[in-house]
Amino acid sequence: MQNTNTIFIGQKPVMNYVLACLTLFQNGSDSVIIKARGRAISKAVDVAQIAVKRFATGMDVKKINIDTEQVKSNETGNLNNVSSIEIYLGK
Amino acid sequence: MQNTNTIFIGQKPVMNYVLACLTLFQNGSDSVIIKARGRAISKAVDVAQIAVKRFATGMDVKKINIDTEQVKSNETGNLNNVSSIEIYLGK
Repeated sequence: MQNTNTIFIGQKPVMNYVLACLTLFQNGSDSVIIKARGRAISKAVDVAQIAVKRFATGMDVKKINIDTEQVKSNETGNLNNVSSIEIYLGK
Repeated sequence: MQNTNTIFIGQKPVMNYVLACLTLFQNGSDSVIIKARGRAISKAVDVAQIAVKRFATGMDVKKINIDTEQVKSNETGNLNNVSSIEIYLGK
């Protein structure tokens, strides 16, 4: 069964995203991708580590990608380069 | 030639670490490991992306590890879990 879901990390507390992650696995997902940009990257790593280590659910970090995205600034209209991360969790 | 150096990301501006990274490669390092903890993780990803993409030096991201470290708080003496990242750059 191929069933992949993506969680985007934003401004909410870390545990909200951990819970979202655990819920997806409970509901039968084989893998979850955690994505974040800019300053949220640290939080994405926290979410992955808590989901894997504190809740021993049998999932593990399978792959990590980092990349650069171009984001248009709302204030100046300039294109800014922002780093992004994708953490693949699976069983 | 096995020659690996590690750069720890802290409070300084991003370009300081990028320069350190490029200098290590100029001086003959085959690979550089970029390490960071907590909030500096985002900066570590920025450093890796700038070193690889803006300065086309032939190096690339080979591997990324994330982990959890226990750090003793100076104020309370409690052990806190802190996420960490290691980004391996090589040719």
